[in-house]
Amino acid sequence: MGLFSKDIQTFDDLFVHTLRDIYYAENQILKALPKMVSKASDPKLKQAFETHLMETKGQTERLKQAFKLCGVDAKGVDCPAIDGIIEEAEDVAGEVEDKNVLDAALAAAAQAVEHYEITRYGTLVTWAKRTGRGDIANLLQQTLDEEKATDKKLTALAEASLNLKAAS
Amino acid sequence: MGLFSKDIQTFDDLFVHTLRDIYYAENQILKALPKMVSKASDPKLKQAFETHLMETKGQTERLKQAFKLCGVDAKGVDCPAIDGIIEEAEDVAGEVEDKNVLDAALAAAAQAVEHYEITRYGTLVTWAKRTGRGDIANLLQQTLDEEKATDKKLTALAEASLNLKAAS
Repeated sequence: MGLFSKDIQTFDDLFVHTLRDIYYAENQILKALPKMVSKASDPKLKQAFETHLMETKGQTERLKQAFKLCGVDAKGVDCPAIDGIIEEAEDVAGEVEDKNVLDAALAAAAQAVEHYEITRYGTLVTWAKRTGRGDIANLLQQTLDEEKATDKKLTALAEASLNLKAAS
Repeated sequence: MGLFSKDIQTFDDLFVHTLRDIYYAENQILKALPKMVSKASDPKLKQAFETHLMETKGQTERLKQAFKLCGVDAKGVDCPAIDGIIEEAEDVAGEVEDKNVLDAALAAAAQAVEHYEITRYGTLVTWAKRTGRGDIANLLQQTLDEEKATDKKLTALAEASLNLKAAS
């Protein structure tokens, strides 16, 4: 854009900007998840992170399809939010001594990531519907459903075993 | 802590650390919300932000009570996650020209903040229950309920009017 104009002029521009934000975020998550897998001790938690790593790869593919449907290049924009969420996860993990307490911290950190994705995909689905792009809404709804399911799975795992072990 | 030991040794330490994380976050939100009020054009969105500013003040008071119940000082620790989420909200808001598109962007940004709070308070409530601190769980559950209600209110407002105006 020109020197004195702003980059986001229309609702469509805002949609594409948010798509690029979550595309950058998914790519950062793809880099962060293998580290979380290696730090986790509980086999079910490790498995949950590995499953989500596979899902995340599929989610970035869906985003590429969404870019194509929008007729724009698949590229990211800086997303300070996910950078901060991942930085915080790594900071806290580095401060925890006990492996059971670390597992509880890792699960909570992963849920913070999930919630960021839930809010962004939730917004994108709503905006796509509003602008008559049911095709894009349906595509991103699949990802939104996966993120919500991962969040629930982590809650169940934390409540059923991780927190119990961390507290003992 | 000593030079070679880690700060978080126990589940209780992790709980207090997370309490300090969200205390810092609430204080950053208290600074960010008045800017969001001034940038919003839609009267209902402005009102929603003002109401949430009042609620946030009450939520920081609850956190002070929780610190007291834990027998530790009420203080924050750096929370790169909320810093990133707020930075991103301000970056995007600065890039939007049209006031209706800006309102849609502001509502989405506020929902990202809410989701961060929902995940953290959700974790804290679960951890407090697990460690037999029903008193702290009940206190923080009140805040969690408020955060979820604010998120729903923003969704309803966006779907009923903000997105419609932004798309027109």
